[in-house]
Amino acid sequence: MGASLENHRPHEVVIVGGGFGGLYTAKALKNVKNVNVTLIDKRNFHLFQPLLYQVATGTLSPGDISSPLRAVLSKSKNTKVLLGEVNDIDPEAQHIIMGDKLIPYDTLVVATGAKHSYFGNDDWQKVAPGLKTVEDAIEIRRRIFSAFETAERETDPEKRRALLSFVIVGGGPTGVELSGAIAELAYKTLEEDFRNIDTSETRILLLQGGERILPFVAPELSKSAAESLQALGVEVYTKTRVTDIDNEIVTFKQGDQVQQISSKTILWAAGTQASPMGKILAKRTGTECDRAGRVIVEPDLSIKGHQNIFVVGDLSSFSHQNGKPLPGVAPVATQEGEYVAKLVKKRLQGRTITPFKYNDYGNLAMIGQNAAVVDVGPFKLKGFPAWLFWLFIHIYFLIEFDSKVLVMIQWAWSYLTRKRGSRLITGKESLALAKVITQQPSMESR
Amino acid sequence: MGASLENHRPHEVVIVGGGFGGLYTAKALKNVKNVNVTLIDKRNFHLFQPLLYQVATGTLSPGDISSPLRAVLSKSKNTKVLLGEVNDIDPEAQHIIMGDKLIPYDTLVVATGAKHSYFGNDDWQKVAPGLKTVEDAIEIRRRIFSAFETAERETDPEKRRALLSFVIVGGGPTGVELSGAIAELAYKTLEEDFRNIDTSETRILLLQGGERILPFVAPELSKSAAESLQALGVEVYTKTRVTDIDNEIVTFKQGDQVQQISSKTILWAAGTQASPMGKILAKRTGTECDRAGRVIVEPDLSIKGHQNIFVVGDLSSFSHQNGKPLPGVAPVATQEGEYVAKLVKKRLQGRTITPFKYNDYGNLAMIGQNAAVVDVGPFKLKGFPAWLFWLFIHIYFLIEFDSKVLVMIQWAWSYLTRKRGSRLITGKESLALAKVITQQPSMESR
Repeated sequence: MGASLENHRPHEVVIVGGGFGGLYTAKALKNVKNVNVTLIDKRNFHLFQPLLYQVATGTLSPGDISSPLRAVLSKSKNTKVLLGEVNDIDPEAQHIIMGDKLIPYDTLVVATGAKHSYFGNDDWQKVAPGLKTVEDAIEIRRRIFSAFETAERETDPEKRRALLSFVIVGGGPTGVELSGAIAELAYKTLEEDFRNIDTSETRILLLQGGERILPFVAPELSKSAAESLQALGVEVYTKTRVTDIDNEIVTFKQGDQVQQISSKTILWAAGTQASPMGKILAKRTGTECDRAGRVIVEPDLSIKGHQNIFVVGDLSSFSHQNGKPLPGVAPVATQEGEYVAKLVKKRLQGRTITPFKYNDYGNLAMIGQNAAVVDVGPFKLKGFPAWLFWLFIHIYFLIEFDSKVLVMIQWAWSYLTRKRGSRLITGKESLALAKVITQQPSMESR
Repeated sequence: MGASLENHRPHEVVIVGGGFGGLYTAKALKNVKNVNVTLIDKRNFHLFQPLLYQVATGTLSPGDISSPLRAVLSKSKNTKVLLGEVNDIDPEAQHIIMGDKLIPYDTLVVATGAKHSYFGNDDWQKVAPGLKTVEDAIEIRRRIFSAFETAERETDPEKRRALLSFVIVGGGPTGVELSGAIAELAYKTLEEDFRNIDTSETRILLLQGGERILPFVAPELSKSAAESLQALGVEVYTKTRVTDIDNEIVTFKQGDQVQQISSKTILWAAGTQASPMGKILAKRTGTECDRAGRVIVEPDLSIKGHQNIFVVGDLSSFSHQNGKPLPGVAPVATQEGEYVAKLVKKRLQGRTITPFKYNDYGNLAMIGQNAAVVDVGPFKLKGFPAWLFWLFIHIYFLIEFDSKVLVMIQWAWSYLTRKRGSRLITGKESLALAKVITQQPSMESR
């Protein structure tokens, strides 16, 4: 740890994961003297996840919200990017294991994030995909636009109804943003594009387990968000639990009332669980994980008994601030990453640092054109001012990486003109679509 | 044909294929009185193919150069877009067959284009992909960037050399533009991104069978293009034939001299053959195809003996102008489509039209930043003026569809700043990359 001070060997920081937590750790260690950084990720790019729903609904392209890790860090001459998958950790020997390669570390930062959780119903995954990766977004985009295409050819009114029914499970930011975007798509963007179907007949159901959507914002903003969604045409159900998804029929329960809807497009935005790295860490260090599989960290984000192993971002369970773990959002991950970088620097100088404290600048969610909710400190905005603020914040953070100013202008432009250039149905399965549609004009419920 | 004049039933035009030929036929028939148009394509979008190489090399995203067919034609109220695959044609009954559905036509326009040809060496396809579809471009992008990533981890100098060797087969516009773009990538864009490899050691070979690259432009511009490519670092081989591709070794012959190069990234830009629709047409109508499988058309682009069936674009073999078939490029397809639309309109008015004549406005090819060649009538440009002209022309045609002005600005911006936001390694196979790299730091030659 402090060893490098004495022997002048550079202090080796290994970061696993190039999301917000890992990338901001690396960025904050840019060209720090006597520190070498190795950032390892399975992908060659950082994904700006807060805008991923816009790829899923055809407004942006994957490239618009992705920045090659090497490009972001090319000026960080002390930083190496490795493409690869970490298989194991050896805290005694202080190295990680990638295939047959060992990578030694002085400080290890684990930031491998989270994936979807279907709360034990893993068979739902296939029929109700979640939105975490670029591939997820392209798959959801394919499903949404294929549903409209197939409906255009469908003659059976019941099947057509199922094709024009969209169910979004989970009323957090992703669920709210997805359902708002699909509503705008169906009722505005695609209005003139079809000849046989009337896209205004589309039903969009947002199912939320808790008492209100967007539980992290103030109650009056939750209410305003629900009203905005309803004004757009989304049916918002709260206190509603999905009890079954089978054969493209969603069964859900609101109080004692059980309802069913036949839907070809079911999207999952309900739960997350920690990535497998959590379990590996627990096994190797004896540390504890919370119910969602997240690693419980100390006030300085390290693991109990391992002062030089840190966990940041969605994989981290930090509850020293108000008893509840911090939410899995980008600002938390970013601040955690920057904190760990600062701690490492101070420690190398032989100094200490106060415990991590998350500065909650608030919450944002986009509902649709000209509507959003913003809950930032004393500011509680809704409607158009909130939308403008949302746009500004996202531009601000997006350009930090990659000068994607023009992307955001383009995005705002296509948003205002309701054009969606990126509504492509692509991928291997997309070619099957033409065949399926061709061969089965009145297709079976599969 | 003229039938609709008498009975006032709308004249049904069915167009198969939404590339330049089919789309421009449909656009030119927009809201024409008493004409119904049905455009059928396997994909839900039109692809601006002249810029596809920029997706393959990470400058643009697929969404930037794709326009949803429904959106392009949404104001054409007489036009229906169908997603599907045409299986057969019945010229006697005057309908096409899609699965179990029959679609009757009065006029049929076939514009299904061409695909790669490996001149009988179909086993080369897997190791040397061509560039026709969005999926091709994403796959080539994956291969190019994965090669650099894998090289970064490779310790064996020979294997590293194979990873940093790129062979492009075919010296037409696609081959020239691909090799120029890869050169800029290796020698400029990625210069600072890697720590273990020196990307300036990259070798890029462009192999052209004929006497000169870009055979469609004037000889002095071919020469200038070759010089520009060489200045960028591309090794240009003319009069060179590939005799074998096996085990990632390309064997090629220039005169009597046989050479071999070990390369992990081999790209095919050499030949095309007509889509299978050509054979179906030949079988059903008794018409002839040329050596490349293209349908030989009459001076009015119809098929011999079938005045109401037209073939336009890359599938069409039109040699009434100067004895040689017109090349398979976008301007030819566009003009052919517009001609057929005009012919249909005139015919409905009981009038005739002079044979099709292609107005050759010239040829363009982009070589790299600030360099291109333009051979347009009296103008033979090279270098920066040619580059500006190339940019202007492509902006002009791209915005015709989709107001993608901002895309082009973004493109020019990223081109000038050498940033490439879209160099993503995505798709199912991309996740395997991390595993392969991890498990086999010194991987086998596969």
